[in-house]
Amino acid sequence: MPFAAKLGRLGSRLQDPEWRRYGILLAAGKAVGLTLVFAVILLAASILGGGSAHADDPKFTGNDIVNPINTFWTLLGAFLVFGMQAGFTLLEAGFCRSRETVNVLMECIFDTCLCGLCFWAFGFAFMFGHGNGFIGMGDGKGHNWWILHNAPATYESTGVAFLAFWLFQYAFADTCSTITSGAMIGRTAWLGDIFYSLGVSGFIYPIVGHWAWGPDGFLATMGSASTDGSWHFLPTLGNSFHDFAGSTVVHTIGGVIALAGAIALGPRLGRKFKRDGGGPMLPHDLVVGAVGGLILWFGWYGFNPGSTLSAMDFQGIGRVAANTTLAACAGGMTAMFYGFPQTKKWDLGFTVNGFLAGLVAITCPCYWVSPLGAVLLGGVAGVIVVMGINLMEWLRIDDPIGAVPVHGMCGIWGTWSLGLFACGHFGASGPNGADNSAPLTGLFYGGGVGLLEAQIIGNVTIVLATFLIAIIMMKALMAAKVLRVSAAGELEGLDLHEHGIPAYPEFQMVPSATAHGASGSHGDAPSKAAV
Amino acid sequence: MPFAAKLGRLGSRLQDPEWRRYGILLAAGKAVGLTLVFAVILLAASILGGGSAHADDPKFTGNDIVNPINTFWTLLGAFLVFGMQAGFTLLEAGFCRSRETVNVLMECIFDTCLCGLCFWAFGFAFMFGHGNGFIGMGDGKGHNWWILHNAPATYESTGVAFLAFWLFQYAFADTCSTITSGAMIGRTAWLGDIFYSLGVSGFIYPIVGHWAWGPDGFLATMGSASTDGSWHFLPTLGNSFHDFAGSTVVHTIGGVIALAGAIALGPRLGRKFKRDGGGPMLPHDLVVGAVGGLILWFGWYGFNPGSTLSAMDFQGIGRVAANTTLAACAGGMTAMFYGFPQTKKWDLGFTVNGFLAGLVAITCPCYWVSPLGAVLLGGVAGVIVVMGINLMEWLRIDDPIGAVPVHGMCGIWGTWSLGLFACGHFGASGPNGADNSAPLTGLFYGGGVGLLEAQIIGNVTIVLATFLIAIIMMKALMAAKVLRVSAAGELEGLDLHEHGIPAYPEFQMVPSATAHGASGSHGDAPSKAAV
Amino acid sequence: MPFAAKLGRLGSRLQDPEWRRYGILLAAGKAVGLTLVFAVILLAASILGGGSAHADDPKFTGNDIVNPINTFWTLLGAFLVFGMQAGFTLLEAGFCRSRETVNVLMECIFDTCLCGLCFWAFGFAFMFGHGNGFIGMGDGKGHNWWILHNAPATYESTGVAFLAFWLFQYAFADTCSTITSGAMIGRTAWLGDIFYSLGVSGFIYPIVGHWAWGPDGFLATMGSASTDGSWHFLPTLGNSFHDFAGSTVVHTIGGVIALAGAIALGPRLGRKFKRDGGGPMLPHDLVVGAVGGLILWFGWYGFNPGSTLSAMDFQGIGRVAANTTLAACAGGMTAMFYGFPQTKKWDLGFTVNGFLAGLVAITCPCYWVSPLGAVLLGGVAGVIVVMGINLMEWLRIDDPIGAVPVHGMCGIWGTWSLGLFACGHFGASGPNGADNSAPLTGLFYGGGVGLLEAQIIGNVTIVLATFLIAIIMMKALMAAKVLRVSAAGELEGLDLHEHGIPAYPEFQMVPSATAHGASGSHGDAPSKAAV
Repeated sequence: MPFAAKLGRLGSRLQDPEWRRYGILLAAGKAVGLTLVFAVILLAASILGGGSAHADDPKFTGNDIVNPINTFWTLLGAFLVFGMQAGFTLLEAGFCRSRETVNVLMECIFDTCLCGLCFWAFGFAFMFGHGNGFIGMGDGKGHNWWILHNAPATYESTGVAFLAFWLFQYAFADTCSTITSGAMIGRTAWLGDIFYSLGVSGFIYPIVGHWAWGPDGFLATMGSASTDGSWHFLPTLGNSFHDFAGSTVVHTIGGVIALAGAIALGPRLGRKFKRDGGGPMLPHDLVVGAVGGLILWFGWYGFNPGSTLSAMDFQGIGRVAANTTLAACAGGMTAMFYGFPQTKKWDLGFTVNGFLAGLVAITCPCYWVSPLGAVLLGGVAGVIVVMGINLMEWLRIDDPIGAVPVHGMCGIWGTWSLGLFACGHFGASGPNGADNSAPLTGLFYGGGVGLLEAQIIGNVTIVLATFLIAIIMMKALMAAKVLRVSAAGELEGLDLHEHGIPAYPEFQMVPSATAHGASGSHGDAPSKAAV
Repeated sequence: MPFAAKLGRLGSRLQDPEWRRYGILLAAGKAVGLTLVFAVILLAASILGGGSAHADDPKFTGNDIVNPINTFWTLLGAFLVFGMQAGFTLLEAGFCRSRETVNVLMECIFDTCLCGLCFWAFGFAFMFGHGNGFIGMGDGKGHNWWILHNAPATYESTGVAFLAFWLFQYAFADTCSTITSGAMIGRTAWLGDIFYSLGVSGFIYPIVGHWAWGPDGFLATMGSASTDGSWHFLPTLGNSFHDFAGSTVVHTIGGVIALAGAIALGPRLGRKFKRDGGGPMLPHDLVVGAVGGLILWFGWYGFNPGSTLSAMDFQGIGRVAANTTLAACAGGMTAMFYGFPQTKKWDLGFTVNGFLAGLVAITCPCYWVSPLGAVLLGGVAGVIVVMGINLMEWLRIDDPIGAVPVHGMCGIWGTWSLGLFACGHFGASGPNGADNSAPLTGLFYGGGVGLLEAQIIGNVTIVLATFLIAIIMMKALMAAKVLRVSAAGELEGLDLHEHGIPAYPEFQMVPSATAHGASGSHGDAPSKAAV
Repeated sequence: MPFAAKLGRLGSRLQDPEWRRYGILLAAGKAVGLTLVFAVILLAASILGGGSAHADDPKFTGNDIVNPINTFWTLLGAFLVFGMQAGFTLLEAGFCRSRETVNVLMECIFDTCLCGLCFWAFGFAFMFGHGNGFIGMGDGKGHNWWILHNAPATYESTGVAFLAFWLFQYAFADTCSTITSGAMIGRTAWLGDIFYSLGVSGFIYPIVGHWAWGPDGFLATMGSASTDGSWHFLPTLGNSFHDFAGSTVVHTIGGVIALAGAIALGPRLGRKFKRDGGGPMLPHDLVVGAVGGLILWFGWYGFNPGSTLSAMDFQGIGRVAANTTLAACAGGMTAMFYGFPQTKKWDLGFTVNGFLAGLVAITCPCYWVSPLGAVLLGGVAGVIVVMGINLMEWLRIDDPIGAVPVHGMCGIWGTWSLGLFACGHFGASGPNGADNSAPLTGLFYGGGVGLLEAQIIGNVTIVLATFLIAIIMMKALMAAKVLRVSAAGELEGLDLHEHGIPAYPEFQMVPSATAHGASGSHGDAPSKAAV
């Protein structure tokens, strides 16, 4: 009997009093049942929930509760990463000479302000917008997200409030930009600083960063065939490029631009390298420098665990935080011991550089390795950073804070190390929790060389492209005579020359500090720290 | 047929075996149905929830989950705002002369302790209790909340744990109190410090603050007719006074008391003003001062976003955090460029003051403006603060840290700016999320002058009342000869005179620093920062 | 009629078309009913939840939402406690002499790295593993948790991710280890530092800590009869030992080892005590020292509130945070006033020590006392710490930073004070909220001496055992000639001797600072702070 006919028969039967009674009984039963269902649900909620959930409470169980928690988590991460600016400022200020300290302070603060305005005006749209594999342009549907206009309420599928995600990513961009300045201390003119900072914050970081972290960046989509006709890079590679919290995107980019800057500028006046009978210029306040390092470590707890963008992945955030810690501990330890034979002293600069090296290295693989892997790869980073400092000295490149060894070299190592140490248990973080259905496995855990290949290809692509762009920009600024301060200004000291005030107007400095910083008379320990 | 009769017929029918069978069948169906409903719910929970929700888990969906999340958020805010004390201490210490540094440290710490005890003993009850439009007195039902006795479990309708809310508000009170001390550095006797701090922390801040933030404060209820017979201020105005996180309540009050203190005290011995051929006394440690500013910025992420008291309003906290950042960036930038022609130097003091000015200004409107609005009003604040510093110099008022321009003037600007920039999309935050049904709209967004009027009336009322009370208190303390240290003590230096120890016992200071701080020989850049 | 017969009759009736129709009608009704139930649930969720919960949202209501929130809370605690390292480093560096400052920096950093590796390798397993009353050994089922292998997903019944809990506890272990170093500043050889740090971080802290905080520690199970045949300590006592966040476990242990270290080492060369006509060596940078103290206070908001391991206990975290604040405020205040008559100066060292004393004291009882109790017991701690500093001076024990009075003595006072001030309303924190069914009540609140007894027994047991082990270790290291640096090295200064660089290479120090620190010529105020 077709359904229409049944309905018809039901209609005619409802004329029949007997049938009508059955119908009424059924409806009444329904009502009683529904009431019972809700009563039991409410009773359960009020008993089990400790009695504080009243019947008229709004109920939150899905995105309505998950999005606030994940936004909260992301904002904590953003705050901590922003806090790293205090750490960078102290680290750079402590490890430079007193005569260039105010310049360091101004640079860090100015950069933070400039980067915020750039990232608001267009940087974020370039980096995290849809567009093509090379640059983002807003939502890809006609809104370019410049000055954050027409942005949606939440970012993509994260469920995180758009402006919270923006703040988190701004703090990252600011970090990249500050790293660069570390290698250019003491001889960069203020105008040059303004120009190159604009280039880094506004263009190089967001655009190159898009390749790896943009929704359609060509390194993010690398390794698989395109399903929508767009171009994919190396579609048969089988693995895409992974960088959890930015060993490549933040640290390698920052370190490589720093290298280009240091090369273009040349060394500070009076800087003699080791093989010419000199050595690094001494830092001027190790308390400030060392505490800056510790504050950076503290801020890294926003950098890495925050990068899940999800507290619902609670195993993930715990693992990332623990791995971050262990890599730092191992890096500080190996750098201290590895550096000891060189000077027969327990060197503070090496040790601070060592734990920062561990932190930079674990930044890419932190989600996918085991604690043992974190200890091993962090320990290797501590050795690399000491070797890297020596290499820079040998190459006669003046990197006052060691930005290139720490961020550049250990950023590269950390990115590659994922291909070795990914332990095969962890896949991807998501708003509702982890999705470990497609875990990453590195060479040492039986995963073969596929992941390592993808990591090397992605990292080397970014290293080469960034260096090329950066060296052209820096050389052009040198050619335009805006990048390097005049020799007279440098001899007067950047602080007096550009900012009209010394950092410590009431303190008596030793005479040797006047022109070139204190001589390395207390041994040749290359006590520098990195940014 | 009436329901009673139906029930009677049902009763008699249940005697009939045939009808009984139908009844049993119906009841069995009900049971199967209920079982199915619960089975599906549990299955869904365990599948979708990743399998970790067991059948015997307590269920949290309403206030039982929202209150912990919002309390957690409020506590994070409280911790960050408390952390601002480290920032204030560094900023004030770095920008004062070395000879008054220990005094600054002691003042900040003592104030933090005193304010805690006052706010516990009665301050909180005055400010956040029910009472009348002018002062709070506990719950308004006979419990005065002194020493927090008889306080309820959660504060009003926020759902936030009472003691967590108390801590958050204590951290705000402490901020206001510390702001005041910034303009009184270098010549305030310790006893005077104790007395005026007691006045500020225990009475002026909580009582004046009640007017705007108390549950029945007369500026909070301003603009609408009373429904319960109580007196309302300007009941036909149509708008009440809004101050999201305290441009008026914390910063203007603090800045205005600071002004009264600086006027009552007069300048430090040896302070010559610009139009008398002198200039500001130089700071003594710019690293310490600049990093203090950055730590304040960091702490502001508790101040403004925390003031939602709700992480459930996740769009709101993201917007407030981003607006806070952008106003700071814009303020630092405009202050640096606007101050440049004055000295032809890129001045650190102006720049630090500039981003603090942006932060103070955005504190009131942060919830209701767009990112573009934040950039614009923050940028204006950066100009105001430089003009304000020059104005204070011209008025011959010695404000060593610039507390009046930054907190007083930019607090006023920020409060008024809401009437201009409120963008018409956002209403009020609440425990379960935003309620944007009655959005605020400022003059520039087509809202007319109504909101601007209310903001000016509320702000000016507080400025005038606070200044009047504060100048009476300060003048009375001067008259009683407890506010200003003796000339001999001031010449010896407050540190040795009051605290028996210099800040840097092992460092050699330049001779010129002994009595009056270093002379401004490095140009007349007024490098000061604000608290 | 038995159920089987009914089923049989139902089967035969379904042959009957009339009965079949009823059956179909019933089934259709069921389907309609179920649909209605789900429609109403979804509608309610989408209306009440602000429309953001879609029908296909996963639903989170039990452990699936509670565990992420509590893990998030625990991680925030871990980050803040880790941040205390910056505070300790500044406090120790500021209050020591300049010549031993680099050594202090290195010690704090090295310790942080070493402690991380030890706690990863075996320390955590010793402390938080199952085993017996004296030492833990992993899960007690054959997995020893060394290098965290085979650890479960969450720790015990907390629901907190295992690695998040590990990080939180690592930060605590690191604190204990750093406390120890405070009393040993200025004369400990670097090798000695390595060895004793290994002993403290790897063995003493985790093993003694297990007694109170391990799942089966003998002080945790003290006072009740065993139900599983295992040995219980004082099974008839009636109360177990309570230490909410570690007045005993972290601070007393740290302070007692510090005492053993200071006794074994003897005073620094040139240190003359008060009754021999001398006094404490002066600190060298009070800004650094005081801000270090404030950063410690900030970090304490992770230490105490974080120790609930649960944000769901939202009344609890609010109360703990407020109590922590009030005890610090009271301690700073009483120490300042109590210390005044001694020197007729408002002493910064006493005041910083005072609020730290309040923080140490409230660490044990913070969950169980009222705000009034917190003020009282914190205030007492501020007096104890001043008396303790004087006592150490009289005993001729050189504790440069006051680690023993602050952490040792006030840790003891805080632990005992629970037996006096527990207010009788609060029981235990748990993942889903508080369980106040068995509240703790102290002597002053009518609870008799039972709790006080248990606290004294537990605390004294740990004090005696720790001192015994520590003095043996320290004396053995002295006998092996690795603990104390050579006299020549000490006179050269630890920084140059062990680390090859002074802390301030460009600053001119006063001549008196060269060998023994600045003389106490600015009065005999014993301005020291504690770690």
